[in-house]
Amino acid sequence: MQLLNNKTRVQTGSRPSAAAKAVRVAQPSRRNVVRVAAAVAHDFDTKVFHKELAKFADSEEYIVRGGRDKFPLLKDAFKGIKKIGVIGWGSQAPAQAQNLRDSIAEAGLDIKVAIGLRPDSPSWAEAEACNFTKAQGTLGEVFDVISESDLVVLLISDGAQAKLYPRVLAAMKPGATLGLSHGFLLGVMRNDGVDFRKDINVVLVAPKGMGPSVRRLYEQGKSVNGAGINCSFAVHQDATGNAADVAIGWAIGVGAPFAFPTTLESEYKSDIYGERCVLLGAVHGIVEALFRRYTRQGMSDEEAFKQSVECITGPVSRTISTKGMLAVYESFNAEDKKTFEQAYSLSFKPAMDICMEIYEDVASGNEIRSVVQSVSRFDRFPMGKIDQTYMWKVGQRVRAQRDESKIPLNPFTAGVYVAVMMATVEVLREKGHPFSEICNESIIEAVDSLNPYMHARGVAFMVDNCSYTARLGSRKWAPRFDYIIEQQAFVAVDAGTPTDSEVMAEFLAHPVHRALATCSSMRPSVDISVGGDSSNVGVGAGAARTEFRSTAAKV
Amino acid sequence: MQLLNNKTRVQTGSRPSAAAKAVRVAQPSRRNVVRVAAAVAHDFDTKVFHKELAKFADSEEYIVRGGRDKFPLLKDAFKGIKKIGVIGWGSQAPAQAQNLRDSIAEAGLDIKVAIGLRPDSPSWAEAEACNFTKAQGTLGEVFDVISESDLVVLLISDGAQAKLYPRVLAAMKPGATLGLSHGFLLGVMRNDGVDFRKDINVVLVAPKGMGPSVRRLYEQGKSVNGAGINCSFAVHQDATGNAADVAIGWAIGVGAPFAFPTTLESEYKSDIYGERCVLLGAVHGIVEALFRRYTRQGMSDEEAFKQSVECITGPVSRTISTKGMLAVYESFNAEDKKTFEQAYSLSFKPAMDICMEIYEDVASGNEIRSVVQSVSRFDRFPMGKIDQTYMWKVGQRVRAQRDESKIPLNPFTAGVYVAVMMATVEVLREKGHPFSEICNESIIEAVDSLNPYMHARGVAFMVDNCSYTARLGSRKWAPRFDYIIEQQAFVAVDAGTPTDSEVMAEFLAHPVHRALATCSSMRPSVDISVGGDSSNVGVGAGAARTEFRSTAAKV
Repeated sequence: MQLLNNKTRVQTGSRPSAAAKAVRVAQPSRRNVVRVAAAVAHDFDTKVFHKELAKFADSEEYIVRGGRDKFPLLKDAFKGIKKIGVIGWGSQAPAQAQNLRDSIAEAGLDIKVAIGLRPDSPSWAEAEACNFTKAQGTLGEVFDVISESDLVVLLISDGAQAKLYPRVLAAMKPGATLGLSHGFLLGVMRNDGVDFRKDINVVLVAPKGMGPSVRRLYEQGKSVNGAGINCSFAVHQDATGNAADVAIGWAIGVGAPFAFPTTLESEYKSDIYGERCVLLGAVHGIVEALFRRYTRQGMSDEEAFKQSVECITGPVSRTISTKGMLAVYESFNAEDKKTFEQAYSLSFKPAMDICMEIYEDVASGNEIRSVVQSVSRFDRFPMGKIDQTYMWKVGQRVRAQRDESKIPLNPFTAGVYVAVMMATVEVLREKGHPFSEICNESIIEAVDSLNPYMHARGVAFMVDNCSYTARLGSRKWAPRFDYIIEQQAFVAVDAGTPTDSEVMAEFLAHPVHRALATCSSMRPSVDISVGGDSSNVGVGAGAARTEFRSTAAKV
Repeated sequence: MQLLNNKTRVQTGSRPSAAAKAVRVAQPSRRNVVRVAAAVAHDFDTKVFHKELAKFADSEEYIVRGGRDKFPLLKDAFKGIKKIGVIGWGSQAPAQAQNLRDSIAEAGLDIKVAIGLRPDSPSWAEAEACNFTKAQGTLGEVFDVISESDLVVLLISDGAQAKLYPRVLAAMKPGATLGLSHGFLLGVMRNDGVDFRKDINVVLVAPKGMGPSVRRLYEQGKSVNGAGINCSFAVHQDATGNAADVAIGWAIGVGAPFAFPTTLESEYKSDIYGERCVLLGAVHGIVEALFRRYTRQGMSDEEAFKQSVECITGPVSRTISTKGMLAVYESFNAEDKKTFEQAYSLSFKPAMDICMEIYEDVASGNEIRSVVQSVSRFDRFPMGKIDQTYMWKVGQRVRAQRDESKIPLNPFTAGVYVAVMMATVEVLREKGHPFSEICNESIIEAVDSLNPYMHARGVAFMVDNCSYTARLGSRKWAPRFDYIIEQQAFVAVDAGTPTDSEVMAEFLAHPVHRALATCSSMRPSVDISVGGDSSNVGVGAGAARTEFRSTAAKV
């Protein structure tokens, strides 16, 4: 990490230097690329935490360092907060509620963390299994808990938020803080043409990983300062004057080693977009295409699974996580480099095509509208399983006999995967997102939080441990990446189309590599570990699930 | 066809009988099915043509009979029209312009049919090759032609309409008629919150087939009264009092044996929906899934192509076209019936899931917004080819050695295909579309107009001879049908899930079979024929294309 001499900067509250801005503006634009002016840094005002200015490639952004040694600061951050109500029990809620409770206990504070659920919710028993109980006043009816809480962490499903937000807002105490882990609700309210009431804080803390990984890494990190999932945070509305400190305290309380400022809008666009691209949808789609290709070329089913899925969730993810994308390329010998180059350069543009479509469908409100509609159809059309097909049955057999040290690093697979990852990055960059957000939503969340779950038990264990919005988006876009990669990239490769050296040159020189190096220095101090098909490590009540619901949008 | 004793009804202009309505309302609803009140018949006022009341299953709708023997009526229908400007040269324009010109000549009228194009349009030469020339005043600049025409048939791409409609409307003469072949523009204008100017007629004639088939069947039908593609028509705005007659005249002029009334809204919803479902998207997606399944089961590539694509575009389409969907089922022996039943009943619900998603994405404006966005990206991301993959190369070889009489009728393939077709039907029915529209947009257009093109030269020859909206929609939704059929239907079949007898019973008793029988009596009096890979029958300037453009939205 390249932290600037930030003390003076922090004290003067200076914005990124003119020099840094000039460098960014002066970068040559590619043909046909409209570059949107980037809001590089989202400044914020903290009285409790230490704000540092970090350099991501050529731009500067503020960050806040977390870790267990910052837990004592929670006292000041959560000043006036007696009760934190975590509403819901989906992907994020069990993780955040348990982490917050543990962190607050560690800090020795008298703040109750309570879960709010419908009384007839099937999640009631699971929350009790995690020791949230009615008797202790830490489990109650949704609107009771909301009306009693000073910080309401609203983690009901996106579809339920869309339906219930008027009641949620009405139930809140004046001066309380509404906490979101996703800007989705802002998108919904914009589609509806309404705004938040003015007498409450509205903040966001968005962990850069699915719920089960937020819990799992926090558990692993109990003896390690700085193990947990990084978060972005945002202050959308500050009624009390200390909203930023509440948000940062929340982020550090759920275990973030680092917290990055953003806005609700920037967060929901990059988040809904990212999960449809390389985080979930794209990786699912391309491994289906690669597996088909390899078996058609004569590989055995098992070998094809290893050369596609195992390669990506194993060595490719590990290398990117620790050394970056260039290191994947550089690990190959000359011949394999050529294979990577061809696969990369012929996959990049088709991937950009779909990524751009996704971004603009998210930005226009289309994706949010579709999600709300899909959720309203769940009673009649629940989401089906995605991992019962031929290929994923092969995967079960492969995992059962896995030798981690023998998973191949296939240069063709790596080229296609890195191309899709870079396309995810490049669209966010063109649309003006800050590098901390780009790196997290396109790279780090994939290799540090999500792919390990696919590695452990296959695609559904990854996709379906995420939110409804993510699960629906992955189901929607995975097939598009599959088809376009087969129809465009594979066809071009098979026709002997040479490597596009311009595309490769752009890959090698892309500033994201330097930005990622900064981010990587902020990665958790331990690697996530989660149990395989026959293990219960990180699986079960309050952790990752193996059975998934998709019923109507209830709390 | 069951035509009622309609003379009195026509004279009194009566609406569908209360009895017919009662029958419809009294039908038992299935669980969870919200039935929207149907606008069964769209009444209209004609002074020139003969309006008949036809019975489609349990509901009645007005129709108008066309055919070459009605060409003499064009004189009255087109009263006051001196010039018809056909704007654009895409899928529909070459067909409609040539058909109108031929019909008007046949009727001995002094009406010029002129093409309007950008002067630098690459289509200019193609229009000249079809004998539209500047010298004769039948080829000119877009806005010149619009301002001189009494009927403006606006057939520029949907994306171009979205961009140019304010200029188009401004250029029109007061009292002229704006003719659309698609309600798309209404959807765009609704998204934009604007309305048509009030001093013009706004009508629609929507041929129930892609442009090349509209021309091809008209050519084939020159010696046969009643050969051509049926059309729906709508009067959205009647400034002159004879808008319906202009619309019906136009429909009959392009060769419609029958014309069915609808509204712009009902048309664009069912049209954009239908092409994403069984007409293009779904049929593409399921044959990819079936081909993979059959090769994985050990069939040779050629055999798998025959048992999937050839089966659908050959015997299945022919049987449905002439005898309906039930006849496909009834043609099987007892054992094959069981195979059909299982494939059908386990595919129907997954297909319904995607069909409902598509309908609601169309109805909410999402699909139109996405199309407009995609078209605006064409300069950077043109649509790629969809037929260069392994499977479609196999198809080329299979077609080269085809013996029509030996194409298999595979009961599994037929079950999946008919399930997808019935899902397409059922969603339209639940959403309240009239049966004439349902049958055309879900069944007849598939088997009589589109599938014959896939039969002749593969998937791109069908998909890419349609509009940008259709081509984009097919690319978007084909993969979704592929995935859901593999993930849900095939998995269920392989797990030995028994036939769902309730789903089968609903299929056998569905009123669409009776409605289709009525529609089938209105089908063209000859079958369409179009040349295969090495033939030029129905291919070339002004007919079907083998090379496709997808550049920016220009006229």
